[in-house]
Amino acid sequence: MRALYLADGQLTYRTDYEKPVLQAGEALIRIQLAGICSTDLEMAKGYVPEFRGVLGHEFVGIVVAAADSADADWVGRRVVGTINLGCGRCAVCLSDGPEHCPHRTVLGIHDRDGVFADYTALPVGNLLPVPDGMPDETAVFTEPFAAALRIREQVAVRPTAKTAVVGPGRLGLLVGLSLSLSGTDVTMLGRRASSLELPAQYGLKTGLVDDFADDSFDFVVEATGNEAGFAQSLQLVRPLGTLILKSTFAGNANINLTKLVVAEINVIGSRCGPFAPALRVLAAGRLDPRPFIDGEYPLDDALAAFEHAARPGVRKILIRP
Amino acid sequence: MRALYLADGQLTYRTDYEKPVLQAGEALIRIQLAGICSTDLEMAKGYVPEFRGVLGHEFVGIVVAAADSADADWVGRRVVGTINLGCGRCAVCLSDGPEHCPHRTVLGIHDRDGVFADYTALPVGNLLPVPDGMPDETAVFTEPFAAALRIREQVAVRPTAKTAVVGPGRLGLLVGLSLSLSGTDVTMLGRRASSLELPAQYGLKTGLVDDFADDSFDFVVEATGNEAGFAQSLQLVRPLGTLILKSTFAGNANINLTKLVVAEINVIGSRCGPFAPALRVLAAGRLDPRPFIDGEYPLDDALAAFEHAARPGVRKILIRP
Repeated sequence: MRALYLADGQLTYRTDYEKPVLQAGEALIRIQLAGICSTDLEMAKGYVPEFRGVLGHEFVGIVVAAADSADADWVGRRVVGTINLGCGRCAVCLSDGPEHCPHRTVLGIHDRDGVFADYTALPVGNLLPVPDGMPDETAVFTEPFAAALRIREQVAVRPTAKTAVVGPGRLGLLVGLSLSLSGTDVTMLGRRASSLELPAQYGLKTGLVDDFADDSFDFVVEATGNEAGFAQSLQLVRPLGTLILKSTFAGNANINLTKLVVAEINVIGSRCGPFAPALRVLAAGRLDPRPFIDGEYPLDDALAAFEHAARPGVRKILIRP
Repeated sequence: MRALYLADGQLTYRTDYEKPVLQAGEALIRIQLAGICSTDLEMAKGYVPEFRGVLGHEFVGIVVAAADSADADWVGRRVVGTINLGCGRCAVCLSDGPEHCPHRTVLGIHDRDGVFADYTALPVGNLLPVPDGMPDETAVFTEPFAAALRIREQVAVRPTAKTAVVGPGRLGLLVGLSLSLSGTDVTMLGRRASSLELPAQYGLKTGLVDDFADDSFDFVVEATGNEAGFAQSLQLVRPLGTLILKSTFAGNANINLTKLVVAEINVIGSRCGPFAPALRVLAAGRLDPRPFIDGEYPLDDALAAFEHAARPGVRKILIRP
C-alpha cells in the first residue's frame, strides 16, 4: 500500500509498504481523510529519532475487516480512533487507562504505524463510530479537539475565569474554542496579526502577545509549540492562577521558577483527551472546525502536504488517500 | 535598638537602629527568639538587592505596646505573626487575602523591617497568641511549619500517595513531617547521608537522591533550594503525578517541558501557609521541631549566626535578642 514513512528523521513516500497484518481484537481501517498536526511536523524534523514507521494519528476511516468474528459488525462503519494502546495489565492501565502506560504504543508516534497510508489497524476498543451526517472534514478533527477538551478533564474551567490562549495555531485555536463553549471569556494571543483573523471570525478576543502587558489572567494555555511560549504565558497568569501546557515540543526551556513559587502558579501538562465528548460537540454543531482547513493533498503528494503544513500561520492540512 | 540590617546586599549589625514607630492598628513586639531561614540567606547573598532594612521573619515575641487603645488587651501576650501585609482594598486582597496583594509588604523581605532586632511591629490582625506551655523554641517554628502546611491547602494529600521530598533541610524536613501527619508514606531524599540522619530519627524513609531511580512517586516536593532540584524532582514523579515547588530561590532553571506535558504532570508553586493549624499541630505535640535546632546566638552575634546557618547540612539557627 501507499504510506508516508519516517525513519532516521527522513520522511519518504512509499508505494510498497506492507498492509497492516491484524492482531487479535484489531480492525483494518481504510483511511478516508487524515490531518497533519504539530507533533507530526516535529517528528518529521527528527525530534523522535527512535520512531520508524508510518506517521500520522488524526484520521477518519472505514472499517474494512476485523480480526475477530465477534467484531464483524464493525465492518463498514465509519470511525475515528483513540491513539494510545496500553498493555492493559499494568497498574497504570488499570487505574489511569492506556494514555500513560509505560509499555504503550501510540498510533504513528511510538512503536506503531500510523494513518498517512491507505490503511491502518487499531483494536476495536479504540474505535468510535462517527455520527451519520458528520462530514469527514469535521470528523478528522476529533483527535485534536479531544486533546483540547482534555483540559476540562484536568481542571474546572470556570465560566468567570479570565482566560488567555497563547498560540492561535491548529491546536491553540481549538483549545480557545473549547474553553469558550461554556461562556468563559477567552483571548487568543499570537505573534502575527494574520494569525488572529480566524480567532476573531470565531468571535474570540484577540491580541498580539509581544505588546500584551496584562498579567491578570486566571487561566492561561500555552499552545505555541516554541520555547518562548512558556515565559510569555507565565507572565500573563495572575498569582494563584493556572497555566496549562498544551505544546508538545522536544527540548528544555529556561523557566523563571521564582514567579512560579512566589505567585503560587499551578502548571499542568496536558496531552490526549476524550473522544466521545469531542464527537458530541462536533455532532451538535457547536463548533465547526472546517475553517481551519488550509489545504488538502492526495496521499501521493504527502511530502508537499508536509511542506505546506510547516509554513508559518498554516493551520490544518489534510491528506486524502 | 539593636538590629541586623541589610542594604545593598551587605549585612551589618547595628546598635543605633530606630525602634519601630507604630502605625494605626499595629503592635510593638519585643522579640524573644527568631529563626534564620533559606530566604534570609538568599537575601544576605544579595539576591533581593532592592531590600533595605532589618532582615528576618520567623519569630516569637511579647507584645509590649499597641497603637490603638482598643488593642490594649494584646499587651503582655506572647505571639507569633503572619508576615504578609496587603493593602486590604484591592481585588486580590478581597478575594485571596494579603499573600498575593501586588501592593503588599512582607516582614523582613519586602519593604518592611523584620525581626532580627530587639523589636518589630505588626498589625494586631497578623498576630496569633502562642498557647501557654509551648516553648519559645517550638513556637519559633510556626512560620516555616505553616509554609509546610500550605501544601495541604493547595492539594489533597492522600494518605495512600507515595510521596517524596527532595531536600531534607530546614524546610524540606518540616514538609515531610507535615505530609506524614495523616499517614502518607514519605521518603526524604538528600545528597548526603548525614542530612538523612534526622529524617530517619523522625521515622521517615530516606534515600540518596543521586542514585534513586524510582520514578513512580505520586507526589513529590522540591525543597532543595538549588536549580538541580527541579530536574531531580521531575524525574521522580509518575505520569499524572504532582510536583510541589517549595524552594524559593532566585533565578531560572532549565526545565524538561517534554516530560511535563507528555506525562501530564501538575506543578504547583507553594509559599506562605496558615498559622492557626500550625500552632494546633505544635501545641498538640504531634511534631516536636526542636531537634532541628543546630545553634542559638545572641543578637550581638547575628553575623556569626548567619555564617553558621549557611554551612551545608545545618538546619535551624536561632537568634535570641
